[in-house]
Amino acid sequence: MVQKYKFGNPFRTDAVVREVALCEGEMPYMKKADGEKLSFSYHLEQEDEVYGLGENVRGINKRGWEYRSCCMDEPNHVEDKRSLYASHNFFVVRGKKCFGVFLDAPGIVTFDIGYTHLDEMRVTLEEPDAMVYVFEGDSVLEIVKEFRVLVGRSYIPPKWAFGYQQSRWSYMTEDEIYEVARMYRDNHFPLDSIYLDIDYMERYKDFTIDRERMPHFEEMVENLKKEHIRVVPIIDAGVKVEEGYSVYEEGVEKGYFCKDKEGKEFVVGVWPGQVHFPDVLNKDAREWFGNHYKFLIDKGVEGFWNDMNEPAIFYAQDRLDSTIDEIASLKGQNLDLSIFHKFMGKVMGLSNNTEDYKKFYHETESGRLSHDKVHNLFGYNMTRAAGEAFERICPDKRILMFSRSSYVGMHRYGGIWMGDNKSWWQHMLLNFKMQPSLNMMGILYTGGDIGGFGADTTEDLVIRWTQMALFAPLMRNHSALGTRVQEVYRFDNQDILRNILGIRYGLLPYLYSEFMKAALRDEMYYKPLAFEYTQDAYVSQVEDQLLAGDSVMTAPVFVQNAKGRYVYLPEEMAMVRMRSLDDYDTRRYPAGHHYIEAGLGETLLFVRRNKMLILSKGGEYTEEVKTDSMKALAFVEDKAVYEWYDDDGMGKDYSNPENIRKITISADGSCTCEGKPVNLEVEML
Amino acid sequence: MVQKYKFGNPFRTDAVVREVALCEGEMPYMKKADGEKLSFSYHLEQEDEVYGLGENVRGINKRGWEYRSCCMDEPNHVEDKRSLYASHNFFVVRGKKCFGVFLDAPGIVTFDIGYTHLDEMRVTLEEPDAMVYVFEGDSVLEIVKEFRVLVGRSYIPPKWAFGYQQSRWSYMTEDEIYEVARMYRDNHFPLDSIYLDIDYMERYKDFTIDRERMPHFEEMVENLKKEHIRVVPIIDAGVKVEEGYSVYEEGVEKGYFCKDKEGKEFVVGVWPGQVHFPDVLNKDAREWFGNHYKFLIDKGVEGFWNDMNEPAIFYAQDRLDSTIDEIASLKGQNLDLSIFHKFMGKVMGLSNNTEDYKKFYHETESGRLSHDKVHNLFGYNMTRAAGEAFERICPDKRILMFSRSSYVGMHRYGGIWMGDNKSWWQHMLLNFKMQPSLNMMGILYTGGDIGGFGADTTEDLVIRWTQMALFAPLMRNHSALGTRVQEVYRFDNQDILRNILGIRYGLLPYLYSEFMKAALRDEMYYKPLAFEYTQDAYVSQVEDQLLAGDSVMTAPVFVQNAKGRYVYLPEEMAMVRMRSLDDYDTRRYPAGHHYIEAGLGETLLFVRRNKMLILSKGGEYTEEVKTDSMKALAFVEDKAVYEWYDDDGMGKDYSNPENIRKITISADGSCTCEGKPVNLEVEML
Repeated sequence: MVQKYKFGNPFRTDAVVREVALCEGEMPYMKKADGEKLSFSYHLEQEDEVYGLGENVRGINKRGWEYRSCCMDEPNHVEDKRSLYASHNFFVVRGKKCFGVFLDAPGIVTFDIGYTHLDEMRVTLEEPDAMVYVFEGDSVLEIVKEFRVLVGRSYIPPKWAFGYQQSRWSYMTEDEIYEVARMYRDNHFPLDSIYLDIDYMERYKDFTIDRERMPHFEEMVENLKKEHIRVVPIIDAGVKVEEGYSVYEEGVEKGYFCKDKEGKEFVVGVWPGQVHFPDVLNKDAREWFGNHYKFLIDKGVEGFWNDMNEPAIFYAQDRLDSTIDEIASLKGQNLDLSIFHKFMGKVMGLSNNTEDYKKFYHETESGRLSHDKVHNLFGYNMTRAAGEAFERICPDKRILMFSRSSYVGMHRYGGIWMGDNKSWWQHMLLNFKMQPSLNMMGILYTGGDIGGFGADTTEDLVIRWTQMALFAPLMRNHSALGTRVQEVYRFDNQDILRNILGIRYGLLPYLYSEFMKAALRDEMYYKPLAFEYTQDAYVSQVEDQLLAGDSVMTAPVFVQNAKGRYVYLPEEMAMVRMRSLDDYDTRRYPAGHHYIEAGLGETLLFVRRNKMLILSKGGEYTEEVKTDSMKALAFVEDKAVYEWYDDDGMGKDYSNPENIRKITISADGSCTCEGKPVNLEVEML
Repeated sequence: MVQKYKFGNPFRTDAVVREVALCEGEMPYMKKADGEKLSFSYHLEQEDEVYGLGENVRGINKRGWEYRSCCMDEPNHVEDKRSLYASHNFFVVRGKKCFGVFLDAPGIVTFDIGYTHLDEMRVTLEEPDAMVYVFEGDSVLEIVKEFRVLVGRSYIPPKWAFGYQQSRWSYMTEDEIYEVARMYRDNHFPLDSIYLDIDYMERYKDFTIDRERMPHFEEMVENLKKEHIRVVPIIDAGVKVEEGYSVYEEGVEKGYFCKDKEGKEFVVGVWPGQVHFPDVLNKDAREWFGNHYKFLIDKGVEGFWNDMNEPAIFYAQDRLDSTIDEIASLKGQNLDLSIFHKFMGKVMGLSNNTEDYKKFYHETESGRLSHDKVHNLFGYNMTRAAGEAFERICPDKRILMFSRSSYVGMHRYGGIWMGDNKSWWQHMLLNFKMQPSLNMMGILYTGGDIGGFGADTTEDLVIRWTQMALFAPLMRNHSALGTRVQEVYRFDNQDILRNILGIRYGLLPYLYSEFMKAALRDEMYYKPLAFEYTQDAYVSQVEDQLLAGDSVMTAPVFVQNAKGRYVYLPEEMAMVRMRSLDDYDTRRYPAGHHYIEAGLGETLLFVRRNKMLILSKGGEYTEEVKTDSMKALAFVEDKAVYEWYDDDGMGKDYSNPENIRKITISADGSCTCEGKPVNLEVEML
């Protein structure tokens, strides 16, 4: 059950797509607190757990920290950060009571979840306007589903986007890109796409191509597509200020850029130097910006990633000017420490200064609004611009799209990647824990950069991280300029990495089926054990194991030099320790705590009781993965039933009943199938 | 067995205090590698483990990263850092072969331990000069002891320094300090000392007192001492450039500051603004600088901490001047991104720029040396200056001393604290893992700032961290300016924190005894299980449990919201789950893997087989802890023998045989004692 409460005069964010009648009277569960700001409090009992908030730091259970919805270009995902790139104001409390809250409020919101006091939660809004939805249900999963139905169906990418993907900031030339493709194909590492980071553009201008670096861009895209490798370019939020650049000139002419309080285009510095921000909160401007993606679609491109759309600001021009003035005035002075620290503070404060959000404006349907009031909607609406445009440009075809910044609602137009993580073991675990929190928000197509983006990686980290990402819908290896190269072919243990990628392609039919069912039914793909095994008192403490789809529990190794790990089983399960798609050992483990060995080349999967994991024979790209002859690893006590979803992977005929087949395996190992026949070799675990 | 090899013309660091004959011919184990730089390599077998390197990031087993000996003021102790504050060039390889190596080389040294290739270790020296010691033995502990004998006995602090200590950057006034003392004493939280961070000084000048903030400093020191609370001031490395400041004027007059290549005093900016560095590598200057500690000793001070002695450099004056010039020249220009990034790079490069190490010089017994050649010796020799001075000023009394920066050899003059950690759960674990690595270097008196120094802490983190530090010789809560206050009385669950500190004072006789035996016998106080249980194939993977002294294994909880943890027992042990000194439950667990509950207020200890843990009745300060009536928690199969060391805690009569008592508990619970009698209530576990 959902109830809607209105505070002040909330901006229409379009996060919610269903009508809900407005409630009068006091909101249940959370008490409106006294104070200048709109604020709600809830007493936390010792057994209460708090889930949600999507992309943020720390655990799946969010208790014990203060989080802040304020989309930031934040490259340091450390424990004491309050914000990352997103604003995901939905959470569920489970314990003495079970309820969910979604604050549809595009300004800054703070969630003190047992930070100031261990036993108190307090949600505070910087702006007085919000539409607040309260959900009731018997379980977290039920409440999540209520919320998901409200905010609309999750974005569905093309099937090839579930293959393994390779990126780097940046492959600088066509030669470098061909070389990556060659290294993958020649060495039989599976691969489905190669990413273009900012350097493919001419002076970082959106919807341009640097013809010196990529003179035959269109030909390259086609050549690689023949090898079943898609090229996926990046699009940035800021449009370069440059005379003669048509996107800039058009935007100025039509008045589609954000303006300052004098009505002049607001200037900030990002990659291209001075840029303007397209006013994606303005419907016309959004349509105009989205239409530009056609420039690349016409060149054969089938996927994009939207970056820098918090929006990131290296400097606001006025702040930079005054800072340089101040520093210049220090010349010749004997700098004491207070002056030196002021100097450093000024320089440190140039980038992503929230004060600069007050200096520019959006022309919305509700009139002119200062950016700080609606800050968290920018990335959402940039990606919405693209998503809405794709519906116009190629309505019958899925286009890959994921964003860095997001707000609830953006999940209908694209996924996200988890931003600028680092090559830290700690971040592999952090990215793992983010998966179910993001799924709660409707963001199903997501993953963190394998091997870590910033900092130098190590071979064992890449191996363990690739294993961890085996079930991640977005499985991409990406790394930053100046860091150690980390394509799988750079390392000594190539067989190990080849085998892990081989497993991925074997898992594809299952993974795709589970993803599609989650998207089409408004459910979660990655679930914490605590959401499913609700009667188990211990299981809420398990945050390094997840259910991936309905059949499998995954338990990656997150610790350097570890040769195994502890695994908690809430019920009897069948372990599959995989070295490759063909080389694995299996064993049933009873419910309880176990230490299980997993050497560097070994991945631990667990098939749940009366469930099955279907496996293809793999391939080196998604189109090569055949489903006409598969294997089922089945743990059957009574009988296991699996609904297998499949489709052509490109079109949108999702509700065709032929997409679903129902496979039943009995305790004696016999197998039947409803729907189109399936050739399945059954292996009983 | 130890062998010594000479490369080039090594500087005499005085790290080693015993004579070792020089070997000719090829060094065993590590192969001298080709290349421009002096470099050694070793092939790592899969089973090889590498231990040592003292204060650095990552695990106890150092495999899988590249470390760098280059003392740095580094406040971000994250996984991808190569250096922290220290240079500790001793490591032990255990696996196919077992050997140790100490590179006595004060320049930058890089340790690639399976970073470039998982199966190769490579040690590279920036300078061609080194004395290299190679150790052979049957076990890591044997090799560590050989090394420790070579480098001399570890520093021993006064007994009160094993009490609980409270710090903050900064308690600004006498009133604030009295308030801290009052809050502790009135609320019966045990406490032995309060720290003064940089603001007690007059304009950050070493060996001065800000008389506006602390007009009655001497009286305050005496008053607090009556309450058994010592005041421990900080001393910084840089001496302020200020006319009329006697330390500055004397130093200039005598030529005791480091000079630039023109022979002028080298100017850098640190806390006081412009400073000079005392040339602590010059024997006369070292003596002169050390003598100044008498200024505070005469005021009743009995302990110090030496900071900023890497040495930290906020800016070198010449680099700051040229940076301001360059930035000023940008005025009016249209900054594109390459100019902006150059600008940011310049500013970021102002502090701790290793290029600045080449700009100043030391006058050593080997002549004038550029700082970069001997960089890692600075902190060591600043603390040596103090330690040598204490021997002159009060030869019969122990003075508390610990430093931030260190090099092997400094362990004879003081301990270290683990520097500017953060209020991260991850850092609690990092600091725990550093303990045995530091013990290997001879640094026994050490600990990390409880609750974390930088960033905002949480109540549960302070509770878990205080539990973790129960056995740490240096047990200090410290936090940075601008972060959440974190004295134990700031939180809701005061009983839990009071009880944890109560346990500490109960543990003091054991802790002191184990520390003193480790120091006097050149052994380790904190040991990884792997060093003791050498026949156990699994135990080398256990890095979140440690042996604390001979009787106890400690297994803290490192995870937020966890209600217990996995514990591995290499043999049967007796668990003691303590809520307070008087409230605990016990249970024997067999060897193997266990999940054991430990609620927020509960600490897990394990008494080893045929060992005992002696416990006093506690107290609110160390002098109040009585040993005339104690309890022994004993796990006796055959018999348990404990050598209990005690002394007056202030003097240096360490070898007095009366300091040692030998307690024997038989399987029937009867207890005998050799030496002075002891009144011991035996509790059989």
